[in-house]
Amino acid sequence: MNLQFYMPTKVVMGKDCVRQNAVQLTALGTKALIVTGAHSAKANGSMDDVIAALRENGKQYAVYDKVMANPTIACCYDGAKVAKEEKADFIIAIGGGSPMDAAKGIALLACQDIAEENLFSGKYGENVLPMAFIPTTAGTGSEVTPYSVLINHKVKSKTSISSPLLFPKLSLLDAKYTMNMPMHTTVNTAIDALSHAVEGMLTVRATSVTDILAAESIRCISGRFEALKSGKLTYEDREQLLYGSMLAGMVIAHTGTTAVHAMGYSLTYFKNVDHGRANGLLLAEFLRFISCSRPDLTNAVLKPMGYSSIDQFSHTLNELLEKKELLTKEEVEQYTAISERAKSIPNSKVVPEKNDIRNIYLKSFNL
Amino acid sequence: MNLQFYMPTKVVMGKDCVRQNAVQLTALGTKALIVTGAHSAKANGSMDDVIAALRENGKQYAVYDKVMANPTIACCYDGAKVAKEEKADFIIAIGGGSPMDAAKGIALLACQDIAEENLFSGKYGENVLPMAFIPTTAGTGSEVTPYSVLINHKVKSKTSISSPLLFPKLSLLDAKYTMNMPMHTTVNTAIDALSHAVEGMLTVRATSVTDILAAESIRCISGRFEALKSGKLTYEDREQLLYGSMLAGMVIAHTGTTAVHAMGYSLTYFKNVDHGRANGLLLAEFLRFISCSRPDLTNAVLKPMGYSSIDQFSHTLNELLEKKELLTKEEVEQYTAISERAKSIPNSKVVPEKNDIRNIYLKSFNL
Repeated sequence: MNLQFYMPTKVVMGKDCVRQNAVQLTALGTKALIVTGAHSAKANGSMDDVIAALRENGKQYAVYDKVMANPTIACCYDGAKVAKEEKADFIIAIGGGSPMDAAKGIALLACQDIAEENLFSGKYGENVLPMAFIPTTAGTGSEVTPYSVLINHKVKSKTSISSPLLFPKLSLLDAKYTMNMPMHTTVNTAIDALSHAVEGMLTVRATSVTDILAAESIRCISGRFEALKSGKLTYEDREQLLYGSMLAGMVIAHTGTTAVHAMGYSLTYFKNVDHGRANGLLLAEFLRFISCSRPDLTNAVLKPMGYSSIDQFSHTLNELLEKKELLTKEEVEQYTAISERAKSIPNSKVVPEKNDIRNIYLKSFNL
Repeated sequence: MNLQFYMPTKVVMGKDCVRQNAVQLTALGTKALIVTGAHSAKANGSMDDVIAALRENGKQYAVYDKVMANPTIACCYDGAKVAKEEKADFIIAIGGGSPMDAAKGIALLACQDIAEENLFSGKYGENVLPMAFIPTTAGTGSEVTPYSVLINHKVKSKTSISSPLLFPKLSLLDAKYTMNMPMHTTVNTAIDALSHAVEGMLTVRATSVTDILAAESIRCISGRFEALKSGKLTYEDREQLLYGSMLAGMVIAHTGTTAVHAMGYSLTYFKNVDHGRANGLLLAEFLRFISCSRPDLTNAVLKPMGYSSIDQFSHTLNELLEKKELLTKEEVEQYTAISERAKSIPNSKVVPEKNDIRNIYLKSFNL
């Protein structure tokens, strides 16, 4: 048995946990840079709670709310400039994967001069601004990973900065912030989280520990399939999705992802398909590819869902994703050529070759 | 759902992991104090591996090998004095629970002047020597907990120092060091680990995450019951016990323990019963007490063992523990009075009153 487990982020989950852990949250520094998107953190109450926590503990703050969906490298440099100008000594990120991933880049670049060509090198100094994360979607798991996934125009895809420096010190998870998430975001992010757990189990880096966390995550998320289909989610449903998403984040923090993510990035980059949806569109056919040589693996993935066949899973995904995007065969060729070069391709227990990648695209889009 | 998860210790498990991770192990400082007991680390090869790792990375070291079974407060002060004299700036602990628990006290006291009367206060400064732990038994879980359990003559029991400062930075788990552990130690430590996982599930602080880790730990350890009975353990058996023990440590790091530990400490303090054995002697009757009002909890504990009744579990424990110690009713009274004051008593989901504690002792020793 070879195993590594490293999860330095302190996770606190519970209703009103931001206010209840205000001292801990604000103990990371004297002036926070709040990193977020333009709208949701203001609308769902998380921003108010964070600002109240900062004020009651006498801490200053500045706000950087320019993070777009699928954040760019430029956004990280821009945010880091603001962090330095504002003399912020810690970061509080609020939002979905985009603000959290951007915040990691900002925290790193605020402390280290890293040229853009070295940004994905994995070779950095030791300094980073301490980070606290407050996820307001239930999908990314970024609150417990060492990854910052950014749009990288050079490779026409998304690329990860990966470093233990990027683990937040603290993540505060309160499902109340996710209660009014739009339904398509709820579905897409839930599928993203599910994809993390499923892919984690299929990687060469999966361990006994990540497998039990992944199985628990799959159980939590798939237990809400009916609620997701109905569009009616209770607080408890939301909480289970947030919990499942965090567990799946712990999984990929150790395992990384597979071809599903690599292939999905093209759908996001070229077709603007939401990241979670992109994974969901490809996941069932990737599982079918794995099952040809390793049906034991796909059974292990399906079991916590209570499914006995990939068809059942595929049917559920189709119901959740509804009408699929149209893809041409030329696009498939282009995306295949890009994604076959991704680092996550050789990470799965059954490594897809170029033709396998092409076929997964073709079958996923009924071509 | 209210949940906290905090496990900052990096765990690396695998054959030859000490030598393979020599750079990481020795990066914690410039001069190590190796904290260990008198014999086993020298006999099982772990000490040689650590010294080789230090030498090949040009690090100095001193050895403090005076840790006794069930370490005392005085031992921690003594070790801290040596750490200061030797100007050690990190600690490598090798051994079972005793060297690891003592090492935590030493790491704390080497950096902070804490009077004995404040040692268990939980109120400390911020400094501690960084620690790397190499467990050579499979029971304590101390390699992933924030606890240092020490003999405390003032309360005629064992008491815990508990602080996030006491998490080791790194734990390296290699089952080869446990291959020649004496059979009684193998059994006692396995039961200790099992008790951690079982007790963790019965605490008020148990969470969804600790429950899945505990169930996995129980599965791993109970899967070796037959091997333990036969006295013949393969490398894989040893590895599963070491893994199960580490998981159980992660559990109690979050949950703490219950009356079983509190009551067992008296058996250790007054009758010199080995710690793991002491837990094992009491565990089945504690489960029976719990099952009166919460059979759901005991079922959750028994299920990963493949048992459907406490009698089956009790029978296995009796086989493993063989002839029990003799206890008088007067001793039971004394131990009941001491253990009912322990902090872990109100930590269980069903809180035992004085009479319950007395009855668990009486039934456990057939009185």
